[in-house]
Amino acid sequence: MRIGIAGTGTWATALAQVLVDNHHQVVLYGRDQNQIDDINSNHQNKFYFGDKLFLSPKIMATGDIAAMCQDADMIMLCVPTSAVGDVLIKLAPHINKKKIIVNTAKGFDPDSGMRISELIGHHLGKGKILAIVSLLGPSHAEEVILRHLTLITSVSNNLWAARFVQELFANDYFRVYLLKDVIGAELSAAMKNSIAIAAGIIDGLGLGDNAKAALMTRGLNEMVRFGRRFKARPATYLGLTGVGDLVVTCGSKHSRNYQAGFAIGQADSSAVFLKENTKTVEGIRTTITIYQKMRKSNLSLPIIEALYQVLFEGAKPSMTIATLMKRPLKSED
Amino acid sequence: MRIGIAGTGTWATALAQVLVDNHHQVVLYGRDQNQIDDINSNHQNKFYFGDKLFLSPKIMATGDIAAMCQDADMIMLCVPTSAVGDVLIKLAPHINKKKIIVNTAKGFDPDSGMRISELIGHHLGKGKILAIVSLLGPSHAEEVILRHLTLITSVSNNLWAARFVQELFANDYFRVYLLKDVIGAELSAAMKNSIAIAAGIIDGLGLGDNAKAALMTRGLNEMVRFGRRFKARPATYLGLTGVGDLVVTCGSKHSRNYQAGFAIGQADSSAVFLKENTKTVEGIRTTITIYQKMRKSNLSLPIIEALYQVLFEGAKPSMTIATLMKRPLKSED
Repeated sequence: MRIGIAGTGTWATALAQVLVDNHHQVVLYGRDQNQIDDINSNHQNKFYFGDKLFLSPKIMATGDIAAMCQDADMIMLCVPTSAVGDVLIKLAPHINKKKIIVNTAKGFDPDSGMRISELIGHHLGKGKILAIVSLLGPSHAEEVILRHLTLITSVSNNLWAARFVQELFANDYFRVYLLKDVIGAELSAAMKNSIAIAAGIIDGLGLGDNAKAALMTRGLNEMVRFGRRFKARPATYLGLTGVGDLVVTCGSKHSRNYQAGFAIGQADSSAVFLKENTKTVEGIRTTITIYQKMRKSNLSLPIIEALYQVLFEGAKPSMTIATLMKRPLKSED
Repeated sequence: MRIGIAGTGTWATALAQVLVDNHHQVVLYGRDQNQIDDINSNHQNKFYFGDKLFLSPKIMATGDIAAMCQDADMIMLCVPTSAVGDVLIKLAPHINKKKIIVNTAKGFDPDSGMRISELIGHHLGKGKILAIVSLLGPSHAEEVILRHLTLITSVSNNLWAARFVQELFANDYFRVYLLKDVIGAELSAAMKNSIAIAAGIIDGLGLGDNAKAALMTRGLNEMVRFGRRFKARPATYLGLTGVGDLVVTCGSKHSRNYQAGFAIGQADSSAVFLKENTKTVEGIRTTITIYQKMRKSNLSLPIIEALYQVLFEGAKPSMTIATLMKRPLKSED
């Protein structure tokens, strides 16, 4: 099987390695010629993984999106959320027959607020899409590249396609489950990045393990209620794309969203972090989209509202927590 | 309000302090005269909290269970699961009118396999019980005693009693939610200790954050399926007594269950740990009860089965994980 992968970042590279471990051919498409050369000549991706890690020599990269598409049985989108729209526009002219499109981005299109599978449908249309599958779950690329045990979910309305992707990726360190609830998985995967920023803030403020577990639980409650408004299934949030991804993102040193929150908590302000940070922190942009959708839907999501105030309205994290605590006592649901 | 608390351990002491902070009278009942004297004379509980921590001087302790009961408007049971039965037998003759009984133990009665609220009903009978309330959730006593922010759940079939306990405890660092699903909360609070041992094993083996998040998620899935068999509500597992308690127990340095698993994982064997450990690790005994109930109910709970083999049948943790991974691929539910 030949698979084209848009992206040369950590996740693109790690998934490419899973596929070549399973005896498939992969071609990565990127825009940075240094990274492309590094992959092709040195079998490394030093920009992301440092100079100690060597990749399978079967992983190839190209700067030519047409070459990546050519003869590919399946196309994967492994780029940050904000880049998915641009990649799809570039990609569309080169897809000459219906293909399975696999997405791994976790977030919303910043311009339209669409979920990524909606965005793919919008840009490619039915003529170029055999099925859309999302590969989501608790999976830091930094561990997958080391072939550490990882469980992930192949999500699609199209069960045949989900199973196809499952079989393609599954091996003894990469275990793939099936899920049909596309809306739940996509909304959960996006929103958990916001909750991870909030969890990082709690830890940065030094509030302790009880407070962090509480924040994550009440955050999950908001994720479920937000999802339910858009017809997500609550049960999905008990699974790998829900609790699983939330746990790994709120706790791992590899999580940029958590680290961002931690820095904001330590400073008890988001000002310096937002000014100086240059890396992609998906949850910051996601918080805007969720906040807008929440307002439009007349939902009450106290943690999201508090986070929005901290990130964009100059609220002090420690004061915001105190305000959250003064809300009237109530039942869990 | 006057509250009698059976126990002088970490949780008894921490909850006593919450109550005196809220201007209630408390009397702790214990069996260790040194601890009783330490609390009454030094306002310390050095055996559990070291010599740096001072308690509110309003916390009183006694070795006389009748004195603890006398004039108490409410009785709390804050002892390890295995001691609850004995305490109830001692307590029964001294309860001369119907009282609210609050339980905080997380596990099953080792002899009968009963849930703790069932055990209370069994020993005290309707004549002595106004209502049974459980106080459960992500709450390490080591943080509550420092008045760190904590969210917890007041669980009862009797909504009035749950609300009564909520009002009694709630303050600006201790936020109490209500829950009606007694079975779900009790089963979840018990079983999460087993999953925390398994999570500790994963970390002790050095398998990484992806693997640990996966274990916790699939563990939660087993908790939900086990609970459903006994009429627990799946939604409960999304809350503080489910995910919340699971997260704090699988991640906190204060969790004995997690620490036990970590030691077993590091040694890649349970033999030395089980021989040398003298502390109460609730999850070890709980695993036996859940395993027995699982067999009796014809349920399949692969993580519980694997854990049972590691703890009691000499299985090697690393090999057991490899076997778990070879199970056929399937859907998430």
